[in-house]
Amino acid sequence: MSSNIGKYISLQIFGESHGKAIGAVIDGLPAGVELNFDKIAEQMARRAPGKDKTATPRKEDDIPEILSGIKGSVTTGAPLCAVIYNTNTRSSDYSEFEAMPRPSHADYPASIRFDGNNDLSGSGHFSGRLTAPMTFAGAVCRQILEKHGITVGGHVYSIGGVGDTGFDPVNVDAEQLNGLNTLAFPTVDKTAEEKMREKIEAARMDGNSIGGTVEIAVVGLPAGCGDTMFGSIESRISEALFGVPAVKGIEFGAGFGFDKMLGSEANDRYVNKDGKIATVSNNNGGILGGLSNGMPVIFRAVLKPTPSISKPQETLNLTTMEAETLSIKGRHDPCVVVRGLAAIENLVCFVICDILKGNGII
Amino acid sequence: MSSNIGKYISLQIFGESHGKAIGAVIDGLPAGVELNFDKIAEQMARRAPGKDKTATPRKEDDIPEILSGIKGSVTTGAPLCAVIYNTNTRSSDYSEFEAMPRPSHADYPASIRFDGNNDLSGSGHFSGRLTAPMTFAGAVCRQILEKHGITVGGHVYSIGGVGDTGFDPVNVDAEQLNGLNTLAFPTVDKTAEEKMREKIEAARMDGNSIGGTVEIAVVGLPAGCGDTMFGSIESRISEALFGVPAVKGIEFGAGFGFDKMLGSEANDRYVNKDGKIATVSNNNGGILGGLSNGMPVIFRAVLKPTPSISKPQETLNLTTMEAETLSIKGRHDPCVVVRGLAAIENLVCFVICDILKGNGII
Amino acid sequence: MSSNIGKYISLQIFGESHGKAIGAVIDGLPAGVELNFDKIAEQMARRAPGKDKTATPRKEDDIPEILSGIKGSVTTGAPLCAVIYNTNTRSSDYSEFEAMPRPSHADYPASIRFDGNNDLSGSGHFSGRLTAPMTFAGAVCRQILEKHGITVGGHVYSIGGVGDTGFDPVNVDAEQLNGLNTLAFPTVDKTAEEKMREKIEAARMDGNSIGGTVEIAVVGLPAGCGDTMFGSIESRISEALFGVPAVKGIEFGAGFGFDKMLGSEANDRYVNKDGKIATVSNNNGGILGGLSNGMPVIFRAVLKPTPSISKPQETLNLTTMEAETLSIKGRHDPCVVVRGLAAIENLVCFVICDILKGNGII
Amino acid sequence: MSSNIGKYISLQIFGESHGKAIGAVIDGLPAGVELNFDKIAEQMARRAPGKDKTATPRKEDDIPEILSGIKGSVTTGAPLCAVIYNTNTRSSDYSEFEAMPRPSHADYPASIRFDGNNDLSGSGHFSGRLTAPMTFAGAVCRQILEKHGITVGGHVYSIGGVGDTGFDPVNVDAEQLNGLNTLAFPTVDKTAEEKMREKIEAARMDGNSIGGTVEIAVVGLPAGCGDTMFGSIESRISEALFGVPAVKGIEFGAGFGFDKMLGSEANDRYVNKDGKIATVSNNNGGILGGLSNGMPVIFRAVLKPTPSISKPQETLNLTTMEAETLSIKGRHDPCVVVRGLAAIENLVCFVICDILKGNGII
Repeated sequence: MSSNIGKYISLQIFGESHGKAIGAVIDGLPAGVELNFDKIAEQMARRAPGKDKTATPRKEDDIPEILSGIKGSVTTGAPLCAVIYNTNTRSSDYSEFEAMPRPSHADYPASIRFDGNNDLSGSGHFSGRLTAPMTFAGAVCRQILEKHGITVGGHVYSIGGVGDTGFDPVNVDAEQLNGLNTLAFPTVDKTAEEKMREKIEAARMDGNSIGGTVEIAVVGLPAGCGDTMFGSIESRISEALFGVPAVKGIEFGAGFGFDKMLGSEANDRYVNKDGKIATVSNNNGGILGGLSNGMPVIFRAVLKPTPSISKPQETLNLTTMEAETLSIKGRHDPCVVVRGLAAIENLVCFVICDILKGNGII
Repeated sequence: MSSNIGKYISLQIFGESHGKAIGAVIDGLPAGVELNFDKIAEQMARRAPGKDKTATPRKEDDIPEILSGIKGSVTTGAPLCAVIYNTNTRSSDYSEFEAMPRPSHADYPASIRFDGNNDLSGSGHFSGRLTAPMTFAGAVCRQILEKHGITVGGHVYSIGGVGDTGFDPVNVDAEQLNGLNTLAFPTVDKTAEEKMREKIEAARMDGNSIGGTVEIAVVGLPAGCGDTMFGSIESRISEALFGVPAVKGIEFGAGFGFDKMLGSEANDRYVNKDGKIATVSNNNGGILGGLSNGMPVIFRAVLKPTPSISKPQETLNLTTMEAETLSIKGRHDPCVVVRGLAAIENLVCFVICDILKGNGII
Repeated sequence: MSSNIGKYISLQIFGESHGKAIGAVIDGLPAGVELNFDKIAEQMARRAPGKDKTATPRKEDDIPEILSGIKGSVTTGAPLCAVIYNTNTRSSDYSEFEAMPRPSHADYPASIRFDGNNDLSGSGHFSGRLTAPMTFAGAVCRQILEKHGITVGGHVYSIGGVGDTGFDPVNVDAEQLNGLNTLAFPTVDKTAEEKMREKIEAARMDGNSIGGTVEIAVVGLPAGCGDTMFGSIESRISEALFGVPAVKGIEFGAGFGFDKMLGSEANDRYVNKDGKIATVSNNNGGILGGLSNGMPVIFRAVLKPTPSISKPQETLNLTTMEAETLSIKGRHDPCVVVRGLAAIENLVCFVICDILKGNGII
Repeated sequence: MSSNIGKYISLQIFGESHGKAIGAVIDGLPAGVELNFDKIAEQMARRAPGKDKTATPRKEDDIPEILSGIKGSVTTGAPLCAVIYNTNTRSSDYSEFEAMPRPSHADYPASIRFDGNNDLSGSGHFSGRLTAPMTFAGAVCRQILEKHGITVGGHVYSIGGVGDTGFDPVNVDAEQLNGLNTLAFPTVDKTAEEKMREKIEAARMDGNSIGGTVEIAVVGLPAGCGDTMFGSIESRISEALFGVPAVKGIEFGAGFGFDKMLGSEANDRYVNKDGKIATVSNNNGGILGGLSNGMPVIFRAVLKPTPSISKPQETLNLTTMEAETLSIKGRHDPCVVVRGLAAIENLVCFVICDILKGNGII
């Protein structure tokens, strides 16, 4: 209805940031998939907080406990439920936001939506922490994709206006993606990382935050995957990604760059590449008519700066309807792009699995 | 499963461009809505082909025949089916694309997806013509929104790099949107229209096509609408919009501009505006945590240049696996942005109705 | 949402009995299925009115016009829409039921549900006529099942207390089912037909109507089909069947007879039957844990007597809140069981296809 | 997809009988509902094992731990997840069934469906134990129904052919239902309980099991609830109920008794009852055209005898394809009807809530 997604495989996310636990139930996974928990832990670690100073100092082990759906380490075909207990919470930090909603946070609309019953602590169900179970679900799906020769990876495309080199949309391959996957701060161009870190550090030192974009590629997806119209790969990836807090835009292939292109420039003409059908360019990001065309699926998403900043902001006290100054305490990421990348990448693994199931491939 | 959408109200689209008919079934509409067919016809006319030389010369009356779901002109609460018969088709134009798929069209992946059984004529189910039933469904929903004081409108934001003045994200109102709705080529700045038309005409004269972006606003949506996570307003609008052929990107509020922003710049602080809660800026495009915050919902979408161009393109003959030159005959839009705007705007009306139903408002 | 069903293939029914048309959209059918329209017409004819005096004298050709989803006679994979125009309607018959709802009809609750906007004529969307598009959709699916060696058939199990011989739940086979399928009044025991016809004729002569049950078998369904829990074969068949007007009960295998059984009598023990796994009895109707076990799937459904009877009935005038006598004119079936059988059987073909798609078989 | 259900509120069940835990996630509950945990515990206790000798001696505390979706004891509107840990399991009991599937259990079809990866221990996800989270979810929904004056209750209608007095379908009321709810073995006629207990005890002493039926009533549901066709109340209750292990049939109102009725007998004529619209009889079980008509909703469901019996059964060894004798050890219910009643009743509370949400009532 809301925190669940999937046409053929269902993913249900639950939990609040400072509640007992967060988690996910995946229903419709193929049976017989042997899960490598080390690899799942690697993906969880990529998203986990407390790693370095680009992220929140809140530390959580974030080791999901799998309650159902596996026998030993093999999926049974029954719904797989994983729970991550919240162990390191400080709810006292949030009491004042009831009267004075944090700018650009869900606080105010959520209090209207749920008649003031929503859990405000740590942003409750709206917290970025909820990307942990998404990451888990995707990390499971990633292992299914691997068996089908499909690799999902990405890099930080830009932060605070500092850009990385974009993927070569025609030649990006599994090797490059797997390499990026091992990096704490994945960029194609190593010098970009340094400049981006400087931007983040400057924001952090100033009690501020900063936004950025990520670029994701899916390679190995066979041509002809996806469904028509609202079942397009774009529809399904975007529906999922806008469930990730902070994501405010998505573009496939040339994306907003199409705005300046002529058809003759934009069209990806077909070529015979070593006996196989390929395209010389990939402005369509591997998707035509909503279906994969065999080229890498490429898209970028933008994440807004963390709205929680310690820098004082003037805002409104809803009780008095007077302006007041707010300085948000607590442990917050100066930039969520690196951690967001891990969450997004893995969530996309779920979406691709769902698409494969709809196509009878898994 | 694919050409249907909606969590609380279901919209099923059907039809192929050169088949007998295209149409839509809407299931779950409120009963007792008196439909104004002139207003529906106005919306259909906005999207219809053959209006002027920015669009395809193919002429279709595009008058939907309503087969069910109304008594007189009032909705009965039963599924509403509307059919638009295809009367002006020239299928002979498409025979050659079986061997030689048109670049950037669905031809090739669709033939893989459907084992060569898909209808290639006029692009079949992948045709932009399928936006007619989307527009119809949205035009019906638009009348429900009106009764709740909600207005959806938009303008051509850019074509070929020529930009219009963007909406004032805080002050855009129903009057402005309704005004734009009456224009054949809706722009905020009338001088932009002229320059955009020049761009389109130049492309047309050259047997080429050109891309662009649209900007849409929803005003009057009360705070607190939407569902959590994957039920976010962004998820639902984007899932729908990527079902519109040619759409390749979407951004809400400041969108990709967040990439260069600090949190202190990006955050929309709350203010007391004549005794009501408002925000001074609207970088979040009226959506926080996926829910409406009472400010205008603002987003932009990019549409790629029509892939059908008469200008010769080199591409691959899949039978011989040799390069060949292709010149696409037929009647094609040099630019789909203006017609696409009408389709997108109305489709968004459907999405907003679906959201309102989920919130118990309709 | 309501008049649509299906987990992996979607079936959307629309139309009102005395409106312009009724129809169905099927989304998610496999591409490349060559449809035999004569066979579809045969199934439609089984359900069609006006055949003999057991049914309503209203005559409708009921030839569905397929608007989309096929090229020649082969499915394209795009949504298939079929429309049946209503040509022989007499809406004046229904004007009085606004004030005086017909007993056991949907009139009264529907007027509450839809604020009096529902179409009362011919029972509108609640009419048994809506089983025509269900039958059509199922007749299409039946042809897909045939290619997988799956046969669905049934017989009138009882009418007015007169029973037919039940299926042999272990040995019922495609040959028997196909034979029954050709009969105008399918019974296993030919002498039962005569007695049932007498019951119906007696009811008809008295301006009355009569109820009965049908028994359906699905043979050839491989073991292991279905999903867990609410995705059980029983859940999915029953969800569909209760969408058929008049159906008020369903039982699988021994059904309500289990109430008198001990476990040792009820259990279907496994045997080696010519080298294959089979069960000696089939009390479970071929379904264990919601999944097929390879034995025939067997179930029975009960259909209540047509509520429309010309025999005078005392009921309530809602305007005056006084009792009044009502005699329902119009052309009504004295017994809907034979026509209902055709509708149910075919609808089950849709459900089985949906299940097969979920299992990756089609 | 399978273990989830609901059109407007989603219920996802997970877990295996001998796994770490079982549980439920409910997504779409109204916010602000104050939960009474004692009342939830009462419902859980009704279903819980180990109460008396009619049930399995396996003892489980079955106290659900709520991980999310509440703040204090009030629903937040975010997904509510509850987990019940499995503490008292003896998995060694199940090793032999891999080669020799238990008759009438899911073992064999599940091993085909999930390629032998399904968890066989305690029947895994197919266990009756999974009705615990269903009961929990329903017990939550029951409290929402209470606030709307809707009561759901039931009684054991028959066991082993011994029948209880059925509900008076017109006059059954909340008081009677609430009274039954407090009984360990709910029957309308206290003398029936004794005879039924004798039947169960006889089966138990013989290492056997026995089947029965339950009758459920929903009172206080306003007229006009439900959706059309496949969204009928019957469709939705039956879809849910067949997700309960052992349920093999369901009938609404007169159900299979309609088979012997004339229309003039079956029709429920309307009367003015103290100024309100009512019907003199209630053969339709409070549902017309799939919608509630304001009379009590009444239905019966049959539960087959527990397939697990210690009495020796001859069956097939799938490895050798030879007949063998099987005696099922372990702790099993000689009759699941009483516990099943609690599960079914509560699950129906969920379904009614889902219907109310679709009607904009909650």
